[in-house]
Amino acid sequence: MGELEIRAATAEDLPAIVAMLADDPLGAQRESPKDLTPYREAFARLAADPNQRQIVAVRADRVVGTLQLTVIPGLSRRGATRSLIEGVRIHAEERGNGLGSQLIGWAVEESRRSGCQLVEFTSDMTRTDARRFYERLGFTASHVGFKMQL
Amino acid sequence: MGELEIRAATAEDLPAIVAMLADDPLGAQRESPKDLTPYREAFARLAADPNQRQIVAVRADRVVGTLQLTVIPGLSRRGATRSLIEGVRIHAEERGNGLGSQLIGWAVEESRRSGCQLVEFTSDMTRTDARRFYERLGFTASHVGFKMQL
Repeated sequence: MGELEIRAATAEDLPAIVAMLADDPLGAQRESPKDLTPYREAFARLAADPNQRQIVAVRADRVVGTLQLTVIPGLSRRGATRSLIEGVRIHAEERGNGLGSQLIGWAVEESRRSGCQLVEFTSDMTRTDARRFYERLGFTASHVGFKMQL
Repeated sequence: MGELEIRAATAEDLPAIVAMLADDPLGAQRESPKDLTPYREAFARLAADPNQRQIVAVRADRVVGTLQLTVIPGLSRRGATRSLIEGVRIHAEERGNGLGSQLIGWAVEESRRSGCQLVEFTSDMTRTDARRFYERLGFTASHVGFKMQL
C-alpha cells in the first residue's frame, strides 16, 4: 500500500467525503451524495470555526478516510477542554487494515496538541463491532448517549 | 417560588456555578471550588467562542441551575448542525421541582433558534435516574458514549 497522508480537508474533497458518509448502514438512509449543496454550505461553516478540524486520510491521491474533531472549552472538570470525534468513515477498500486506528490516533494526538484533557464520542448502539475496537484503543464505554432530532 | 430567569452566565456567576458542579456525586471528585483560577480561564475561552452558551437559571437573585450548550456544524446527516449539552446542574434546594426540564427545554429551543437539526448529550451510566428523565423529555438513548482522559 502507498504512503498515507492525514491532512485538513478542502472543498475539493467533499465528493469523496460525502460518498464515504453515505457508504454506511446508517449513512445510506441519511445522506444525499447526489446533491452536494448542503454539504458545501456545511463545509463553509466548518471552515469558519477555529475549533473545527475536518480531516481526510489520503493514499495514492485517493481520499480513503475522514473524521471531524471539535475542540470544546468548558467549566466542568476544573475548566477542562474536551474534544469530540464525529463522522469517522473508512473507504470500503481500506477497512480492516488499521486505518481506523490511525485516524483515531491522529485525533487523540491533535486533541493533546490543542490542550484537551478528554476525548469523547458516541457510537450508535447498532454498531456492535465498534465497542471492542474503541476499547482496544483506550476508550471507556462509560456513558449513555441521548439524541433528539429537531 | 419566585420567578425564574434563564440568561447567559457572567464571570460573576462562576462561584455559584462551580459550587453546583462540585455538589454532585461525580463532580465532588473532579472539581476544586476553592480555587476558581482554572474556571476563570475556562470561562474566558467560552466567552471567546461564538458557538458556546453557558447559561444560568436565577431565582430570587440566586443562581439555581446551569448548563453548557455547544453549537457544532458538521457534514454528516446532509450537513446538519447539532448541539451538545454538557454540565447540567440544579441547586440542591431546587431539585425535583421541574427546573431541570425547564433548562433542557431552553437548550432545545435555543438549538432550534441556532439552526440545529439534532440535540445530543451523554450521561454517565452511574446516573441511573437520568435515563427516564431524558426519555420523558423526548430524547432517545440510542448511543454508547466513549471517553478517554488525556
